[in-house]
Amino acid sequence: MIKVVILGAGNVATHLFKAFQKSDKVMVVQWFNRDLEKLIPFNNEVGITNGISDLESADVYFISVTDDAISEISEALPFEDRLVVHTSGTVNIHDLDKKNRRGVFYPLQTFSKSVDIDFKKVPICLETIEKDDYKLLKTAADSISDFVKKVNSDQRAALHLGAVFVNNFVNQLYRLAHEITESTGAEFDMLKPLILETALKVQDNSPFRAQTGPALRGDKSTIKAHLKRLQNEHHKDIYEILTQSIKNTHGR
Amino acid sequence: MIKVVILGAGNVATHLFKAFQKSDKVMVVQWFNRDLEKLIPFNNEVGITNGISDLESADVYFISVTDDAISEISEALPFEDRLVVHTSGTVNIHDLDKKNRRGVFYPLQTFSKSVDIDFKKVPICLETIEKDDYKLLKTAADSISDFVKKVNSDQRAALHLGAVFVNNFVNQLYRLAHEITESTGAEFDMLKPLILETALKVQDNSPFRAQTGPALRGDKSTIKAHLKRLQNEHHKDIYEILTQSIKNTHGR
Repeated sequence: MIKVVILGAGNVATHLFKAFQKSDKVMVVQWFNRDLEKLIPFNNEVGITNGISDLESADVYFISVTDDAISEISEALPFEDRLVVHTSGTVNIHDLDKKNRRGVFYPLQTFSKSVDIDFKKVPICLETIEKDDYKLLKTAADSISDFVKKVNSDQRAALHLGAVFVNNFVNQLYRLAHEITESTGAEFDMLKPLILETALKVQDNSPFRAQTGPALRGDKSTIKAHLKRLQNEHHKDIYEILTQSIKNTHGR
Repeated sequence: MIKVVILGAGNVATHLFKAFQKSDKVMVVQWFNRDLEKLIPFNNEVGITNGISDLESADVYFISVTDDAISEISEALPFEDRLVVHTSGTVNIHDLDKKNRRGVFYPLQTFSKSVDIDFKKVPICLETIEKDDYKLLKTAADSISDFVKKVNSDQRAALHLGAVFVNNFVNQLYRLAHEITESTGAEFDMLKPLILETALKVQDNSPFRAQTGPALRGDKSTIKAHLKRLQNEHHKDIYEILTQSIKNTHGR
């Protein structure tokens, strides 16, 4: 059994705790958070603490706090030569204090506290400096997810940036479509099957192959009609830049 | 039984034919296309023709051809006062020749010839000039889809434009993420669960509520790191405009 301590009580920490509770390879021996209040609901399931000097002995320490606080909390740990990992998409492995063995355990998914997630389908990006530490992390990760990969800090930063495009930016395009449709009294709901189909299509096809529409076809009259319809200058700018982007990609 | 004739042999026409073949309210009595070759595979299932003067009597004629050809083919029809509809998202109902009763039957989904689609889940936007024609179209549409709505030409144009945002533009963001991740040797596949989750999230939440990420949080250091990482000026422009868009929407 791999004994772990979780530090932090945000969305990732909470989902990680729940996933580990179901694992037969990992045991959460303690949960730390500066604000103990947030951990009270889990008091019956795990030992909780807000004292960094009270941390118990464990095989891995998971630092799952905001990016800015990772380095500081890794320095504050009152022990040496143990395996300490963070769960961030952007923070470099070397930002962890080198008095301990270091690693990264980054689950690449969007987490909401209120929405349960099937961790089996969450890709986990692993990085360590020592080979043996990798084996240990891999065993822990494999016990909660079917999709575990070795990913270095440069690749992880690229994945995190890619995630902003396919999650935050895509969601903003949904928002703009919402504004555009509702301004005429049309229902945004009518677009939902298309939203889902678009996401499903790239599960088995490359986005390059999946592309369709007026920009790809070079259909100038439709593009002109769309631009005329867009009253909001900001919407217009986004329409133009993404139309140009599609043309660039497909050599038109 | 509602007798229909389909004109055109593109993706929409073909999927519509297949859906009507399964309907117990609609019978396709004839399929017209200028290039008869494309209809040969369906020769055993339906009468086919490439002669516009040979069109049979029917309750509805579905013009499912490229936008530019709709008006012309509606003028070429050798009869009057029958119900003629087109299946386009952008063409106005009044672009159909007024010698016939007019309507629109727009299925709002992305169709590929090779991919089977569950038409039950395809929203269909209906518009007619006469009330009785609406009833007839509604009966036909309800027999193949669970999601039929009355939508006027202005609303339909807005939905079509919204569809470009949530389908073509979203797909292009997938493509950019593909470029960004693969440039470091990271796998685009790792983003696929996130892509799906992002689309699923707005099935039950508004895109406004579903938003997360650095732009929403006003996390300047992450935004700065992302911009530094983006070498491609075009990627950078898109990052900046969509980050600004999220800030505008959420009043930051």
